[in-house]
Parts: sequence; structure tokens; C-alpha cells
Amino acid sequence: MTVRPIIALDAMGGDGGPAITIAAAEIAHKRYPKLSFRFYGREDAIRAELARAPRVAKNAVIVHSDEEVLGTDKPSQVLRRARRSSMGMAVEAVKAGEAHAAVSAGNTGALMAIAKLGLRTMEGIDRPALAALLPTLRSESVMLDLGANTECDEKNLVQFAVMGAAFARTVLGLKKPKVALLNIGEEDLKGTHELKAAAAMLRGADLPMEFVGFTEGDKISKGDIDVIVTDGFSGNIALKTAEGTAKLVVTLLANAFRSSALTKLGYIMSRPALRALRGHLDPNNHNGAVFLGLNGIVVKSHGSATARGVANAIGVAHDLVTADITRRIASDLANFDAHRAPAAAE
Amino acid sequence: MTVRPIIALDAMGGDGGPAITIAAAEIAHKRYPKLSFRFYGREDAIRAELARAPRVAKNAVIVHSDEEVLGTDKPSQVLRRARRSSMGMAVEAVKAGEAHAAVSAGNTGALMAIAKLGLRTMEGIDRPALAALLPTLRSESVMLDLGANTECDEKNLVQFAVMGAAFARTVLGLKKPKVALLNIGEEDLKGTHELKAAAAMLRGADLPMEFVGFTEGDKISKGDIDVIVTDGFSGNIALKTAEGTAKLVVTLLANAFRSSALTKLGYIMSRPALRALRGHLDPNNHNGAVFLGLNGIVVKSHGSATARGVANAIGVAHDLVTADITRRIASDLANFDAHRAPAAAE
Repeated sequence: MTVRPIIALDAMGGDGGPAITIAAAEIAHKRYPKLSFRFYGREDAIRAELARAPRVAKNAVIVHSDEEVLGTDKPSQVLRRARRSSMGMAVEAVKAGEAHAAVSAGNTGALMAIAKLGLRTMEGIDRPALAALLPTLRSESVMLDLGANTECDEKNLVQFAVMGAAFARTVLGLKKPKVALLNIGEEDLKGTHELKAAAAMLRGADLPMEFVGFTEGDKISKGDIDVIVTDGFSGNIALKTAEGTAKLVVTLLANAFRSSALTKLGYIMSRPALRALRGHLDPNNHNGAVFLGLNGIVVKSHGSATARGVANAIGVAHDLVTADITRRIASDLANFDAHRAPAAAE
Repeated sequence: MTVRPIIALDAMGGDGGPAITIAAAEIAHKRYPKLSFRFYGREDAIRAELARAPRVAKNAVIVHSDEEVLGTDKPSQVLRRARRSSMGMAVEAVKAGEAHAAVSAGNTGALMAIAKLGLRTMEGIDRPALAALLPTLRSESVMLDLGANTECDEKNLVQFAVMGAAFARTVLGLKKPKVALLNIGEEDLKGTHELKAAAAMLRGADLPMEFVGFTEGDKISKGDIDVIVTDGFSGNIALKTAEGTAKLVVTLLANAFRSSALTKLGYIMSRPALRALRGHLDPNNHNGAVFLGLNGIVVKSHGSATARGVANAIGVAHDLVTADITRRIASDLANFDAHRAPAAAE
């Protein structure tokens, strides 16, 4: 167990840059006073912000970097100068053991490429996956993969299930999370060969999760399933469709409220209710996607997250570090393989 | 052009049975007085309902059937007794030229199997697709395939684009609909091989549509794209995720309104606004999914649709019949192939 988690922060990533990153660290430090930080980016800008963040200032190391990864950069360009960019240096700090986790709000594709190259995929995992929390009617669920792997075979899906369950146990505090494969029907006959094969492998597995079979897109937001496992293509489509639909409904609602004097008055009176709704759906409250399956923890924050949002992403990193997620996944995998071996020999 | 469209209705499909089906036909007849109907199902039940539907009673033929397809029936079971079930007989009427289109609110998988076997796939189309209208910020967009084909190659996707554009021109009244392929990013490099190949084929095509490249899940509900083309797996996931998310937001909103006396009062005053929102999202207002690419028109209504909802599905059938959608698709395909031939020979 880590006593004092050190978080490497890419101060230049995201729309807000150092101002948001350091304000976020200040919020996170209030919640987790044992945290300390390593900031990567333009030293003068970081130093100026630290003047406004007394808690962080006492627990920070600044490492200067002139280069930053832009939102428009292609992963191939980024990799060539990874060691000099603030994002690359934050990931490198995890590799070198100078930090326990890296957090960046920069370009997702670039962060994925840098993290994969720098930290390498952990033993027993063929491909890392991007996992995140989604708001549901009950509270939050984990979904993965969200776009790291366009096509996946059954082994990938099974490994995602193992990693997602470990993530849910850690971040949602569940003992035996309910895990399902996303499909176009709940019947055993539905879906691709890969999904059916993955379901067969997971069905009898002795793992700290409850595998409940297939689930469908309209069930995601109900929150009955804790971990929704899918390939990166479908996961990305589902995540973005959910975001778009939530935005549509909220926009239609706002338009409807503006339609008459009576509804405008109704809006004013309903404001606390609408604020609660917005809070539940606000991506800042569910911020912090994680690249699972690497030899090290890398958390991706939304590019447009507020300081509170980035603080939540730092909180996710904190939870994963203190729970030693990488070791958890490794031990679950070893267990799973040990129990599968006899069955495979039958 | 058909002068008097005849619609074959599976009176037994859906949760509402003959009561909803005949009430729906009455509403549809008020809108389209040239319609006439053939009802398939239990004669006594249908006759009892016709007593309440004077317009339809004057324009109806009843064909008795003892058997109905249940929601739990498997397509293989259904096919064996297709000729005797109300659903199978409605589709058969289209094949026999006794009706111009069939409408059923029954089991989707069964209807798809019966329609494919009975009407066969039209020339130039490798696989039929399920298309439907989705509510957007602007009005409605077409999405296909929604689940008929779990895996699709580039030729399938191109054919879906051609069929979806013809559908949008007919049902949405657009001259040159904007068509995009659903992907996990808008850049040319993103996505599967099939998507990139389909984009290349559509890019220079001379078709009555504007191909705009790739789009993402969060763009669907904006309504900037008129036709969203995807494989049946991703389409089904996107459609159901959108439905689930809309339900989540509306439920959260209702819960929020119940949170205090003030917000309860606010709710009462906002009711007209909320009714408008619910109307925009109500699946009954977007009812009527279509199996495109068959030698005949088959429309699937939601199983839980109201009479107004089923009337909308009948309206979709009416529009497709009067626009002669099958011939439109055939002519677009012929045009497309004629223009592609020289390029392929290069």
C-alpha cells in the first residue's frame, strides 16, 4: 500500500492549461491531504498558478517542458517527441517510479500511444482498454473499451471484463460487481462469434464478479449492471450517443421552458430541481477515464473539464494507486487462468 | 403511381392487438382517405373492433387467421408456420399483389425472417436493412441498419447509404439528404477497413445525396446529418442507448421535480413545456421502422405503440407506397453502378 501517492500532472493538457490543472490539484489535496504532485509544463506559468494554491505549492515539484501535445497532433508525430512534451514526461515519470500515476487532459489518441509505448501492456493482457464511469439512474457504472481497440476478439473481451471488475471494485467500492457484455439482444444466440465465445469463457469463471450475460444499449443507463464490456468501436458509439442524447434532451427542455411566460416562471421555481439534474449528468462529476492493462496508471481527464472535474480525475488516480489496481488485475488474471486450465484440458 | 394504396395489417401483433390496430387504421384513414386495409387475425375480434371504426369498416377486408406470432417465438419456429400466422399472411398479401405494404407490431426477428423469405431481397442489394427515424434537435434523421445485419462489409454499407437516402427523400421530403457513416472519429484514418472502403466508394459517387464522410455518436441527435449509415450491431447499440439515455434524463427530471414543494409547484407551471418535450421524444411520434431492400414494403411498428403511433407507422407505409420506394432504390443503384463502372475499369 502506498503511503503518499505522487501524481504526475500534465499541466499543459486540456482547454484550461496550468490554471485549471493547479486549481484542480488544490481541490484534490483538500480531499486527499497525503497527495503530492509533479507538474510538467511551462515552469513560469505553473509557478504563477502555484502562488494561488498554497496547499499544492508545499507539495509540488515542477519539471519544465517547452513542448506540449496539441489536440490536432497525430499520435505518430507525438511519439517522435514524446520525451520532450509535458504529456510524455508525465507518463515517463510513472515509468521511472517518480510518480504513482499520470493525469492528462490532452489529446486522447496521443496519450494512449504515449502510455502504451512508455509503460507497455501488463503481462496477461493482450490489449489495454479505456474505461470510464457513466451516470445511471442508480449512480454510476463502468464501461470499457471506449475506443482504444476498434476490433476485439473473445480473449480481449474477457480481459476487459476482468479489468473492468477490478476497476469497479476499486472506484465504486463494490465487492462483487455485476458484469455484462453489450450486445443487440439478451438471448444466448444473439451477436457476433466473439461475444458468444467471451460469454462462454466468463460464464463459469471463478472471479470476484457476477457475470450476468448479455445486456443491451437501453439497459446501460438503468444502472443494474456495474460493468459493461464491449469492443472499442461499439463502446465509443454508445458513450458518445449517450452524451449527445443527454445534451439533446436538456436543450429541448431549455427551449420548452422559454416557450411562454408561464413556463419561464415555472423554470425559475424549478431551478433547484434542474440544477440537481444537471449535476447528475455533468461530465465533470464522472471525470477520469483510465487506460487499464498497462504497467502503470494513466488517467485521462476531459479536455474541457473544470477544476472540480480535473480534481475528480485526480481522485480516480488516487483511488487506483491506493488500491494497487495493477496488482489486483494481475492476481485476478492469474486466478482466472489457474481455474480455467483444467476445463481447457477436458 | 398507386392511386389507392392497400395496407395489409397484422391485427394480432403488438401489445394492443386488434383494438389498437383498428383504431390506428381509423386515424390513418382520416389523414389519407384513399387508404384501404386488409386485416389478418382473429375474425371475431377484428369485426368487433370495426364496429367502432366506421371509416375503416367501409374500406376493409378481413382474412381470418387462428395463429399469431408471439414475442417469444424464435424466427426458425415462425418460418415453419409462416403461411398460417397473421404476420405471415400480411406479408404474403404483399407478395401476391393483394396489398402494397404490410405493417406489423409483432416480433422484429420473426417479421424480418418472414419478410426476407417471402419477398426476397431486391436485385442489386445483398442484404436488406432495418431503417427508422430518430428525433433530433432539428427534427428527424434516418438511421440504418438497426439490427438486421450484425456484421457488414463495405458493399453492404454503400447499399444502406443508397437505400437510406431514398428513404429520407421520400419520408422526410428532402431533395439531397446529407449522408454520413457512423464512426469513432471524423478523420479519414479512423475506424474499420470496411468503413474506410465504403467512404472511398461513396465519396465520388453521383447519387441524389450529399455524402459528408464520417460522423460520431454525439452528432446523431444534433440533426445536421439526415442519414446515418452503420452496421446493424452499432446501429442497434446507438438506437437503444439513445432511447435509454432519453428515459434516464426524463426520469431524473421527474425525480428532481418531486424533491420539494417549490419544485412541485414549478412542475405544475412548467407542464406545457414538459408536455412539448415528451411529445418530441415520444417514440409514437417517430414510429415505423422499415425493412429496406426487399421486393415489397414491410413496416415494423413498436410493440407498445399507441393507436396514434401505429397510425404513424401506417403513414410511413403510405408514403413509401406512393413514392414507389422500391423503384427509386433500384434506379439509384443502377445509376450508381453505371457511373462506377468506368472508374472500376481504370
